[in-house]
This record gives sequence, C-alpha cells and structure tokens, in this order.
Amino acid sequence: MDERLKKQMDFLLEVDKLKFITRQTYLSDGKRKENDAEHSWHLALMAVLLQEYSNQKVDLAKVITMVLIHDIVEIDAGDTYAYDAEGNKSKRRREEKAADRLFGMLPEDQGRKFRELWEEFEAYETSEAKFAHVCDNVQPLMLNNATDGLAWREHQVKKSQVLNRNRRVGEGSEIMRAYIEEILNKNVESGNLKDE
Amino acid sequence: MDERLKKQMDFLLEVDKLKFITRQTYLSDGKRKENDAEHSWHLALMAVLLQEYSNQKVDLAKVITMVLIHDIVEIDAGDTYAYDAEGNKSKRRREEKAADRLFGMLPEDQGRKFRELWEEFEAYETSEAKFAHVCDNVQPLMLNNATDGLAWREHQVKKSQVLNRNRRVGEGSEIMRAYIEEILNKNVESGNLKDE
Repeated sequence: MDERLKKQMDFLLEVDKLKFITRQTYLSDGKRKENDAEHSWHLALMAVLLQEYSNQKVDLAKVITMVLIHDIVEIDAGDTYAYDAEGNKSKRRREEKAADRLFGMLPEDQGRKFRELWEEFEAYETSEAKFAHVCDNVQPLMLNNATDGLAWREHQVKKSQVLNRNRRVGEGSEIMRAYIEEILNKNVESGNLKDE
Repeated sequence: MDERLKKQMDFLLEVDKLKFITRQTYLSDGKRKENDAEHSWHLALMAVLLQEYSNQKVDLAKVITMVLIHDIVEIDAGDTYAYDAEGNKSKRRREEKAADRLFGMLPEDQGRKFRELWEEFEAYETSEAKFAHVCDNVQPLMLNNATDGLAWREHQVKKSQVLNRNRRVGEGSEIMRAYIEEILNKNVESGNLKDE
C-alpha cells in the first residue's frame, strides 16, 4: 500500500477510539452518556441545519470539518467536564500533546491542516470557529433539556455556571443565544438547574 | 420560539435516536458493535481525508452532508445487515416511509433538500453519491480488518459476498477498490473470511 494512504488509514483507525471517550451528557433516552464521536456527528448535522443563524457568513465545509475533529485530542487527553475547575487547569497542556501525536500520524499536509483547524477552533476568533462553538454549546443543552437536566442535577450545576460556559454564544449567533436563554430559564423554573 | 427553529430543533433531537441503532460491525477494540451515529461521523471524516482518491472531483460539503444523513432512515426502518437477503427485500419500502416521517419534520426547504440528498445517495449515480458509497464500504471493512474479521466470522461471511457488496467501489475510487482487494485477500489468507 502507498505510504500516504497507509498513514491516512492508520489515522482513521486510531480515531475510532473517539467512540470510547465518554462525555457527561446523557443521550435523549437518559439511559447512557454520550461519547465524543456521537457528539461530533450531532454537531456536524447541527451546523448544516442551523448555519442560517450564524451572525456572519461561514464556510460550511470548514465548520463541519472543524466540529468533526474538535474533540479528537480527547483520545489521549480525555474529556474534561465543563464544570471541573481542577481538570481545566491542565487541559490545554494535555490536549496540545495529544494534537502533536494524533495529527502527527497524518501525511504532513493533512496533519498541518487539521492542527490549524483545531487551533482555530480553540482560538475562537473566526466566524467558523464562533459558529462551531455555538453548535458545541447548544447540543449538550438540547440533550440536558430533553432529559430533565439529568447531567445538571447529577453534578448540581448552577445556572451561573452554564451561563458562563455559554457566555460567548452571542458572538456566533444572536438567535441561538436567545434560544439558550429560553431553555435555561425553563430549566431553572422546573428545578433542573440551580439558581442562586 | 420561532416555528422554523422549533422544527429544526425537534428534528435534531429526534435524530439523537441514530445513536441507538446498532450495526453489525464491531469497534476497533472488538468489545461492542458500532452504532449509526458513530459510523456516520467516521464516514464524514473519511470523506475529508480521502477525497483526493475520488475518480471524479466532488463537492466535499455535499458528500459530507450525504454521509451524515445517509442512515437516518434507519431510526424507523432499523439497520438491515448487508448479508441479510430477506431483510433486504423490504428495505426500500421501510426506508421510504421513514424518510417521509423524519425529513418531513424539518422546514419544507430543508426537508426536501435532505430527502433529495438521501435519494441521490441511494441512486448511486453522481460523483458525490459514488464517493459517499466508497466511504460507506471502506469504513466497516477497515474495522473488520482491525478486529480479525470478528463480524465476518460471527456471520460466516464469504469473500464473494463482500466482493458483491463492494462491487461498485471502483466507480467512485479506483485506488480504494485496490485497497479493498488487498484487505480482502489478506483476510481470506488468515481465515477471517471464507473463500469457496
């Protein structure tokens, strides 16, 4: 087999491990927690359907590729729960090391492109990165809402924490910021989310 | 909430069920079978990385969207194993009904677009549909190869059945057709796949 194709297939097999990385969000039936591959698929589909709500025009193929790979570093670095203060301190260092190894498996041009796309997502500056973050914020919120705040109640999450986590959504989509606000207020009212 | 956004979010929540649809392929660790959402994520990433091997130029955003939604009908119709002759007889009728209901949940323009994209995938005629099928064929093969033919051995699958299943791969990518041939021969040699 050609060396380039071998690298691509080795990477594609290695990232199968994204299916073993469990997140804190429960699936809509509340029976088990979601994994990173499922989450990434959901985000990509969300990007296709909701792109019309992006504040700025976005390159759809770029947003989709970004969300498809945004969690790949968690294969080595693990999923750090959004509300885990300790874990978030070492997150960046752990994820950079993971990016070196994983994207380094690809042919140089593709590895560099994926690395740049992941850095662009993390930097949160371009319209594509902002809209990718909108999807990354809305999707777990949608599932938490569908399961009566199962993960929120399990971790005793406060409204202020979710608001802080989602504080930049409006930079990517004003409409989805309003949607999130509506969902949060509903969940505070029903007691799924603690208000202080 | 706006009526259009409500339909989009209702659909996005409904398709969470794709994560409950189990396929016959085992994940790379051989511990459990893959679900349709994980499979679709893997295909989308594969399309990004392997597009250079498509015989004809493809619109990447179109291929990706196609593979993201290609199995959504299985939420209602279930996964029909590639080598289940009986199940495959009623497959088309069951999947059309599912497409009516599921894509019908979306705003009319987006539902029509997804329906057309799914029909295009099924029709197997455009360069995008052909390349989407390349990915859909290569991905389970890659996992079967990684697990020493676990699903093949479980179902006593013959090489001729896999060849028949993959007979049109060369229309989408000559290079990936050769890759598949190499993998199949290796698995026949090691006894993972029955040769008659």
